[in-house]
Amino acid sequence: MAFTEREVISVLQKIFATSDSRLLVGIGDDAAVVATKSQSIITSDMAVEDVHFKLEWSSAFDIGRKVTAANVADILSMGGKCDYLTASVALTGEESLQWIENLARGMKHEADLAGALIVGGDIARGAKIVISMTAVGNSPSPILRSGAKVGDDLYLSSLTGWSAAGLELLTREISINSAIAEKALSEFSAPTLDYAIDFSRAHAMADVSDSVLIQAEQIAAASDVQLVLNQDLIAAVPEFNELSELATELNVDVMQWILAGGEDHVLLATGAKLPGVRIGSVVAGSGITGVEMKKAPVSWSHFTN
Amino acid sequence: MAFTEREVISVLQKIFATSDSRLLVGIGDDAAVVATKSQSIITSDMAVEDVHFKLEWSSAFDIGRKVTAANVADILSMGGKCDYLTASVALTGEESLQWIENLARGMKHEADLAGALIVGGDIARGAKIVISMTAVGNSPSPILRSGAKVGDDLYLSSLTGWSAAGLELLTREISINSAIAEKALSEFSAPTLDYAIDFSRAHAMADVSDSVLIQAEQIAAASDVQLVLNQDLIAAVPEFNELSELATELNVDVMQWILAGGEDHVLLATGAKLPGVRIGSVVAGSGITGVEMKKAPVSWSHFTN
Repeated sequence: MAFTEREVISVLQKIFATSDSRLLVGIGDDAAVVATKSQSIITSDMAVEDVHFKLEWSSAFDIGRKVTAANVADILSMGGKCDYLTASVALTGEESLQWIENLARGMKHEADLAGALIVGGDIARGAKIVISMTAVGNSPSPILRSGAKVGDDLYLSSLTGWSAAGLELLTREISINSAIAEKALSEFSAPTLDYAIDFSRAHAMADVSDSVLIQAEQIAAASDVQLVLNQDLIAAVPEFNELSELATELNVDVMQWILAGGEDHVLLATGAKLPGVRIGSVVAGSGITGVEMKKAPVSWSHFTN
Repeated sequence: MAFTEREVISVLQKIFATSDSRLLVGIGDDAAVVATKSQSIITSDMAVEDVHFKLEWSSAFDIGRKVTAANVADILSMGGKCDYLTASVALTGEESLQWIENLARGMKHEADLAGALIVGGDIARGAKIVISMTAVGNSPSPILRSGAKVGDDLYLSSLTGWSAAGLELLTREISINSAIAEKALSEFSAPTLDYAIDFSRAHAMADVSDSVLIQAEQIAAASDVQLVLNQDLIAAVPEFNELSELATELNVDVMQWILAGGEDHVLLATGAKLPGVRIGSVVAGSGITGVEMKKAPVSWSHFTN
């Protein structure tokens, strides 16, 4: 074994150390004590080696960023700000202490971007690496999936599909030396969250973790409306041409990446005159219309083969 | 595959359903929204199949209880009350939907005992079952490990060692038909937390998850004092004779179970005239004295072989 549990905890304590006044009792006691408001937003997200990430595809730093981003994104999608994170990690014991340190640094990097503190967690031994994080945040008025109104427009905080494109390059072991391919690989390994977008006036919102189609379906069901996706609007997004070029090169339907690819952690919102990318509208009815997919979304379920 | 992710989530939503007014937005959106006070206590604990539990040793219900109890105990040990829990579970796909339902019912059972709500989580696929939970609670004045004062007495909320005794019976495949053996097995499978004890006046507190020795050492280090364990006081605890009888039957040092066994989730506290079981005192100095162990604590580190 390359390390002891104490060594790991000591490394993590150093990396996650903070003098932020929100943290009243930090790592080292049975639990952390933090300042909270009268309402808190709580969400958890788990990533498993060879299911959600592969060691040969992503660096420890990027894996740390990605799992943290997935958790933070669920807070952002409630119109919230992420304050605190915990990270529990099952390690096989084959990792180097350096790898673990880089994982923690990736978590810290994304947490810093979000303005969040990593305040606790657990270390366990497992057959595969499993990373489980919980995010606690706050919002003056949480934005739910159920708030979409007939007459709203439908928006993305930025174009989806990049993560699916990266996955395709890695799965098919295709190496393309271009800035576009590089962006796809980077978005797969550690998606960039749209921290700067102001969706505070959105009526309904979700984070596109499964796919635009799945999250749109969830908003439609929760709000009892129909979401009409407009492929012409999507095709008019400036970035669409770049992604489309890569799709053509790989002989893939670009709409499949954009609408049915997962793990972009882009925000999907309804409302009036929102920033971001307009991709459709909200009408009376149910479900989603306006799209013809060649295949069902790839990430429909982890358990259906 | 015996189930889809949607079926699992649907089962969990039903079991974890609540009309508790603390829960403002429940399972089904990107995150839960809950009522919190100005301070919150946050802790996470992860359990891995074949490391922390074995399917042949424990029922799904007991596994659910045990992991939940481990998380709740870390809130209790801060002098807090557990309000909310999230549960993220990696499943192999070989489980029946009934097994998953029983796991969730075990979590709910322990959460109910704690007065806590299960408000979210995640489902993933993995090579082994991994259960990761996070607890969020509150305390008007958190009790830390660092508060022990020279002159304090040292207390346990109840006698430790039962979980280690159960583990010994299971590991050595010894079947003893007695109430004492049954209690040991039950405490191993799903430890009973000491919810009723009033340690609110404790100066320092920790939950005995690793062992009395390890947690005592942590309190001593955090408080810059020495903890003197008194084996005569321990031997005078009414339950000691029962546990000692079982230890003799198995040819084991009972003090090894009591002081070096783990996963009892009993509370270890210092203070004056506390309820529970007095086992020692706090003096000037450092570390622990008063015990002679034949072996090092078994659970000193998951990563040191």
